[in-house]
Amino acid sequence: MSRFSQPPDRVFQQLNASIGYDWRLGPYDVEQSRAHAKMLAAAGIITAADRDALLAGLERVEQELEDGDFPFAPEDEDIHMAIERRLTEISGPVGGRLHTARSRNDQVATDMAMFTRAHALTTLQRIQHVQSVLVQLADAHLDWPMPGYTHLQRAQPVYLSHHLLAYFWMFRRDARRFEFVLGGTTDLPLGAGALAGVNFDTDRGAVAAELGFERVAPNSIDAVSNRDFVLDYLSAAATCATHLSRLGAELVLWSSEEFGFVTLPDAWTSGSSIMPQKKNPDAAELLRAKAPRIVAHLGALHGVMHGLPLTYNKDMQEDKEHLFDTVDTLDVCLAAATGMIRGARFNVERMSAAASDDLIAATDVADHLVKQGVPFRACHGIVAGLVRVAVDSGRSLAQLTDAELAAASEQLDPAAFRELLSQSSWLESKVSVGGTALTRVREQLDAARSALALHAA
Amino acid sequence: MSRFSQPPDRVFQQLNASIGYDWRLGPYDVEQSRAHAKMLAAAGIITAADRDALLAGLERVEQELEDGDFPFAPEDEDIHMAIERRLTEISGPVGGRLHTARSRNDQVATDMAMFTRAHALTTLQRIQHVQSVLVQLADAHLDWPMPGYTHLQRAQPVYLSHHLLAYFWMFRRDARRFEFVLGGTTDLPLGAGALAGVNFDTDRGAVAAELGFERVAPNSIDAVSNRDFVLDYLSAAATCATHLSRLGAELVLWSSEEFGFVTLPDAWTSGSSIMPQKKNPDAAELLRAKAPRIVAHLGALHGVMHGLPLTYNKDMQEDKEHLFDTVDTLDVCLAAATGMIRGARFNVERMSAAASDDLIAATDVADHLVKQGVPFRACHGIVAGLVRVAVDSGRSLAQLTDAELAAASEQLDPAAFRELLSQSSWLESKVSVGGTALTRVREQLDAARSALALHAA
Amino acid sequence: MSRFSQPPDRVFQQLNASIGYDWRLGPYDVEQSRAHAKMLAAAGIITAADRDALLAGLERVEQELEDGDFPFAPEDEDIHMAIERRLTEISGPVGGRLHTARSRNDQVATDMAMFTRAHALTTLQRIQHVQSVLVQLADAHLDWPMPGYTHLQRAQPVYLSHHLLAYFWMFRRDARRFEFVLGGTTDLPLGAGALAGVNFDTDRGAVAAELGFERVAPNSIDAVSNRDFVLDYLSAAATCATHLSRLGAELVLWSSEEFGFVTLPDAWTSGSSIMPQKKNPDAAELLRAKAPRIVAHLGALHGVMHGLPLTYNKDMQEDKEHLFDTVDTLDVCLAAATGMIRGARFNVERMSAAASDDLIAATDVADHLVKQGVPFRACHGIVAGLVRVAVDSGRSLAQLTDAELAAASEQLDPAAFRELLSQSSWLESKVSVGGTALTRVREQLDAARSALALHAA
Amino acid sequence: MSRFSQPPDRVFQQLNASIGYDWRLGPYDVEQSRAHAKMLAAAGIITAADRDALLAGLERVEQELEDGDFPFAPEDEDIHMAIERRLTEISGPVGGRLHTARSRNDQVATDMAMFTRAHALTTLQRIQHVQSVLVQLADAHLDWPMPGYTHLQRAQPVYLSHHLLAYFWMFRRDARRFEFVLGGTTDLPLGAGALAGVNFDTDRGAVAAELGFERVAPNSIDAVSNRDFVLDYLSAAATCATHLSRLGAELVLWSSEEFGFVTLPDAWTSGSSIMPQKKNPDAAELLRAKAPRIVAHLGALHGVMHGLPLTYNKDMQEDKEHLFDTVDTLDVCLAAATGMIRGARFNVERMSAAASDDLIAATDVADHLVKQGVPFRACHGIVAGLVRVAVDSGRSLAQLTDAELAAASEQLDPAAFRELLSQSSWLESKVSVGGTALTRVREQLDAARSALALHAA
Repeated sequence: MSRFSQPPDRVFQQLNASIGYDWRLGPYDVEQSRAHAKMLAAAGIITAADRDALLAGLERVEQELEDGDFPFAPEDEDIHMAIERRLTEISGPVGGRLHTARSRNDQVATDMAMFTRAHALTTLQRIQHVQSVLVQLADAHLDWPMPGYTHLQRAQPVYLSHHLLAYFWMFRRDARRFEFVLGGTTDLPLGAGALAGVNFDTDRGAVAAELGFERVAPNSIDAVSNRDFVLDYLSAAATCATHLSRLGAELVLWSSEEFGFVTLPDAWTSGSSIMPQKKNPDAAELLRAKAPRIVAHLGALHGVMHGLPLTYNKDMQEDKEHLFDTVDTLDVCLAAATGMIRGARFNVERMSAAASDDLIAATDVADHLVKQGVPFRACHGIVAGLVRVAVDSGRSLAQLTDAELAAASEQLDPAAFRELLSQSSWLESKVSVGGTALTRVREQLDAARSALALHAA
Repeated sequence: MSRFSQPPDRVFQQLNASIGYDWRLGPYDVEQSRAHAKMLAAAGIITAADRDALLAGLERVEQELEDGDFPFAPEDEDIHMAIERRLTEISGPVGGRLHTARSRNDQVATDMAMFTRAHALTTLQRIQHVQSVLVQLADAHLDWPMPGYTHLQRAQPVYLSHHLLAYFWMFRRDARRFEFVLGGTTDLPLGAGALAGVNFDTDRGAVAAELGFERVAPNSIDAVSNRDFVLDYLSAAATCATHLSRLGAELVLWSSEEFGFVTLPDAWTSGSSIMPQKKNPDAAELLRAKAPRIVAHLGALHGVMHGLPLTYNKDMQEDKEHLFDTVDTLDVCLAAATGMIRGARFNVERMSAAASDDLIAATDVADHLVKQGVPFRACHGIVAGLVRVAVDSGRSLAQLTDAELAAASEQLDPAAFRELLSQSSWLESKVSVGGTALTRVREQLDAARSALALHAA
Repeated sequence: MSRFSQPPDRVFQQLNASIGYDWRLGPYDVEQSRAHAKMLAAAGIITAADRDALLAGLERVEQELEDGDFPFAPEDEDIHMAIERRLTEISGPVGGRLHTARSRNDQVATDMAMFTRAHALTTLQRIQHVQSVLVQLADAHLDWPMPGYTHLQRAQPVYLSHHLLAYFWMFRRDARRFEFVLGGTTDLPLGAGALAGVNFDTDRGAVAAELGFERVAPNSIDAVSNRDFVLDYLSAAATCATHLSRLGAELVLWSSEEFGFVTLPDAWTSGSSIMPQKKNPDAAELLRAKAPRIVAHLGALHGVMHGLPLTYNKDMQEDKEHLFDTVDTLDVCLAAATGMIRGARFNVERMSAAASDDLIAATDVADHLVKQGVPFRACHGIVAGLVRVAVDSGRSLAQLTDAELAAASEQLDPAAFRELLSQSSWLESKVSVGGTALTRVREQLDAARSALALHAA
Repeated sequence: MSRFSQPPDRVFQQLNASIGYDWRLGPYDVEQSRAHAKMLAAAGIITAADRDALLAGLERVEQELEDGDFPFAPEDEDIHMAIERRLTEISGPVGGRLHTARSRNDQVATDMAMFTRAHALTTLQRIQHVQSVLVQLADAHLDWPMPGYTHLQRAQPVYLSHHLLAYFWMFRRDARRFEFVLGGTTDLPLGAGALAGVNFDTDRGAVAAELGFERVAPNSIDAVSNRDFVLDYLSAAATCATHLSRLGAELVLWSSEEFGFVTLPDAWTSGSSIMPQKKNPDAAELLRAKAPRIVAHLGALHGVMHGLPLTYNKDMQEDKEHLFDTVDTLDVCLAAATGMIRGARFNVERMSAAASDDLIAATDVADHLVKQGVPFRACHGIVAGLVRVAVDSGRSLAQLTDAELAAASEQLDPAAFRELLSQSSWLESKVSVGGTALTRVREQLDAARSALALHAA
């Protein structure tokens, strides 16, 4: 019997039902139910025979879910109810014993923690994959010069390897963030009951051990009110997606006719419905476009949790779609980034030509003067003046006359000045640790390989 | 001389200048400049005499900043330029040597990392403070019964101590998040130069050691493009603020006449301009209201970084106001939460009365039947039927007749049923680990004290 | 032939394909294609025979879409390509003539504008529906007193009708917002081509007229770059959802045992998996919970459009899922709000009792003194003092002694004071326009009915 | 006397006080107080002498605010209290009569509506200004060819005037949005009292008329709970800022060495602290960077209002900083956009050269075949094949041999094909309404001028 005298309104069912998406929790729900049944029997709350019946039923449910022939029913509001209903169809009334000493509140928190942990691990593998490809690419393009940009203006030349490795370290930090996510899923909610604990002296530690949790959540109220670990995943994903959006934006830019630094593989570009000549960097654009979506999921879940009194409120059902779409979006974005950069062809001529504009050596000229004893700020002014003369007269720095150089500064030896304006020295002079000189990039590449090996181990 | 022939437009200055807020980086800028000057001298890039002159000038600058009499000039665009200008006024042309082998790009990234680290540490102390007060309050209200709520409906009774400790564990996770933030500020950006490294063989390791960084950033391009640590702080703050918003919302609710669970201290409430009787929980409302602001800062910085090509872009100047306001907002919110709950007076009568509604024992009746061997799902149905009869006839469960009980289930012994409906057993029967039974709450309180001691150590 | 030598990567297809959601544009795409074909023939760009063949084919496509047996193919990347492919299967090579003088860029912008307009109209109907129910409810509960709250503290009594009508006016503003959305979909994008216009002297005005647009977009570049109307819908929806969240929050609050102001219909509430007594206001909680989701969609699309160079970029494909989910979410929320409040039973005893707490009349006492000539601010102080005496001694205002009243103010006539503290006068004295006195609420109800009639006409 | 026995805690004051920003409401507060005082006297609630004393006092307050010598006091929590306090200092106890028949709740809602209206008007002027400059620029660069881009790939050539006018129409829609904002500020909140109306038969209509409101808010509860008009301003500003971010992004791109389409004025660019050659487009970058900030303000206020029970809650104090910063940010951004584009120098050679890449004419070749009777889809395939041959062999389309052309399609006449590949025809053939042919751009320019004149009138 129910305490309700009216069936749910059709619109209410539409608003309320989560089965359309929470079916994805199915495997985790079966796994936790199996552990719960074993514990109930071990604690003497159900019999061994009941346990065996439950385990057998759960095995069949699991198989049905895996095979895609689990018979969903119209009245299944969520995956937990669907599984309990199906279990009871398979195993008989004993199915009704499974929900002893637990509630949907601790059950769903447990499923969500298990889902989050599993997908954080998958994300970590995807990140490692893109990192490996970056290391290979850096190795293959070790000494290809290109302009480094600040404010999208050519600033100083760097090697392409150095630029690519910048993304390696971004992803290294992303990995650290997903490792932190794992650390937020270590406390088992199951056994917290509806909110207050349960009327049985259960062995939560045993369940935790079986399900791979490190410990049990110490406070039952918090256990069912907590979705921090979902926020953690969303936040880590948002930063990773923001990194990917920068990579996507650079690929879009570099594959423009104006830059011409990269040719994206045909397999990662599209044509136009009307313009036959077009080869559009759709994948790179979508890489750029997905970050706001994930950031929005993060903001939305914060919004949902905002101001919610303890403990469980139905609002918290909104955690699922935000997490699921984030997991899927990030997964395909990481895979796409990996595939796309692996197939990209960089254009050494265009990059080198862009890097040989001699204005890009202005800092080096200033530092040359520093080494003659002129304070840096004064050097900066001298060279800025030379740049103005050159730009106004449409010449390169190297084309300035001895007289013009002498007028700017008596410390400026014309021969040394012109010597300096030969490209390679600009790159190789950046000898500081982490700089673009080849020896430094090689050190960095070794460090990247070590970081990757350590992590993969 | 400048390479520019026109002065900046007044509107451009207004848009561009950051001095109005980045003056807060002053102390960090002086500290890093001091370390940089020492390193330049040690590496033979400047002389010992120059170093001493710079250090003396920086000391005076520091003093002026501290005393609030640093003479800002109208043309100071940002704090870095202001300090260099002032230093040169004080020390003469040698001031112009300080910017050797660094750029504003690595300089500002370093200041921001130092600022973030310093404030993450302060935030950690604030969190510990509110945790201590929660432990004291839990201790003082150990066995005060109140209703636990799900869906804001009375669900099962709990002790007030248990409810308060739920917040303890939320803040414990927040602390873990700010510890993670610290771990994101360990790599020194300084020495990355504009983006490519510098033309001098500097000793970045020495600077890192002096400024408390664990290592140097391994890639100069990444070092100046990276604001992950700011995102990390904002994300940690957003979750903490969301927790505080739940606390604020509960205090608002509990101080309503309808709940009447708490009286907030006069020192944390306001009157009305028109209604003389009003005592409004303004502080609690603002605690609730601030989370969306911090979440917005987080979303905004993601938006700024979204799709930005490497390396530094002016857009990144937007990191500051979002971080500064977040730091200030979270700081005052944590302090307010601490002060407000310390002064709150809980109303034991109102809470107990609310917790003694016998419908709240329905789960216990169901579990009682479970212990007679009835499957839980069947028990749930039996009790739901009893609830419906009681509610429809305006009686409590205890007022149901023997005949009504027998009609519901033959396993239901009327005497045991009525015995069960005496309040304290409902609380003390929640014996599972993390549950609300007093022994369990005492265990939990010990765990909380240990966690706090460990952390404080 | 294609200009590509490699087929799309499987992961790229997964990232790129929009057919999984943009099938919803199908009916609009057929409608615009029909208008386009007619115009092409009228302008002499295709023959009448071609037009007839296209129209016949489109009719069949439309039927298949409607019947749900449109044969989607694995290579269908989006609904536009799917329809063109299918049309060509049905009608032969003439199908290839349909894309003359248009591009996917103007085509999709047109579909989206049509979709937005159609759904804005549906939303307007839903809003009118909930407004009608509010008017009925206000009428039925015209003179039921309840406390009005500020800061969730009882402030001044109002009639339930007055409170319910507050939502009427919120929805009135929402309607105004969706009318504005309609005004943003009046300019036909079709015919802008890829971005520059087309190589044919087409009759865009005729297409606009046939499809119900008021005029043609004046700039082809803007026409394909513009998604303002989607932002407008999302923004209108966000505000409407925020209003609904306030309604949901009040229903949750009012159906708590502590408030007890409303009993929600069984058809709009759920039970608990573990606690047999529970009747949870799930629908009201979800009404509250959905606003952050819609606000997030709005923020996400702004994020996508942020910093995009003109004209069309693939990023803009992200407009669809945000719009579609918003439309669906708002639709079910408005329907749920309507159904839920129509079935709600208000509890006149609980509301009246809460409204009769005499502290709530403090403003009236102050205003009574004002009418004796005391400045309001002084009156406020006098009454605040009386409140303090009453609260400190656990009495109502009416229980204060003559001596206590005299001590507070000599203008305070005890008889008039106690007379005033009789409930009904507190309500009926709020005689200002828009106030809670019954004559004013009746005026307001008439105004609401007029606004509704005007709009429905 | 106060009903409080403790003074506010220092931290509470810090959290609670709004005087640090709401001083900006000062002029509006004085203006509404003046209208309120006149109405109180006209309605016989205060005497004419009291009114005159209040008006005299308010005039002095207004002057002090304007002159910047209003004496703020440490205990001033907000501007409303500060003004009332000061008024009472100036005018004596009569100052305490001003707050008769109003509350801070309706007072602040009124100030905010007045502030919003005033700033929406200013924003409209700023928008008109940038539109005027765009019209002038379009006129001055009417026939300058440049590539139109989709996916940041060269797509079809357009005139610079046509591209610039795209922004004109975006701003036209923004203006429409701010006009809508005005329409949301037409209902006077003042006189709603705390929430229920007031105990006096006030003449709200007279106050509305004096303050420029069209009517009085019809429901007092809604009047003090409503912040829709702030959301409306924030939403309009967010879309406008997103438009500006696209303009900023294009200016950054176009001023890169690779594009070289524009030289930004020295007055709107900055140098580098280290690289003497740099001229950075800081203003354009900040134009791009500000959109996420304003979008965040919008999201934050939605978050604050989310789930708030009626009527006024202190949370709503958060409306101010979000609005004020948005107003200021948008104001400087619109001014900066206007100044920056007015001073920009476009580079006709670079743009023309980029537009003369003959691949950009591929659509025209396809349409040429359409005119020979080949279905568009087939034409697209033929030309795509030619593009592939050209690209693979490093030739332009015009360099393909007669044999290659014949192999692709027998309808392709080599002479006509090569004739077509002369640039100007590609532009002038886009003859459809709204297209880039000069006659169409001239029509558009006229339409823009009319729209502007209409609006300015």
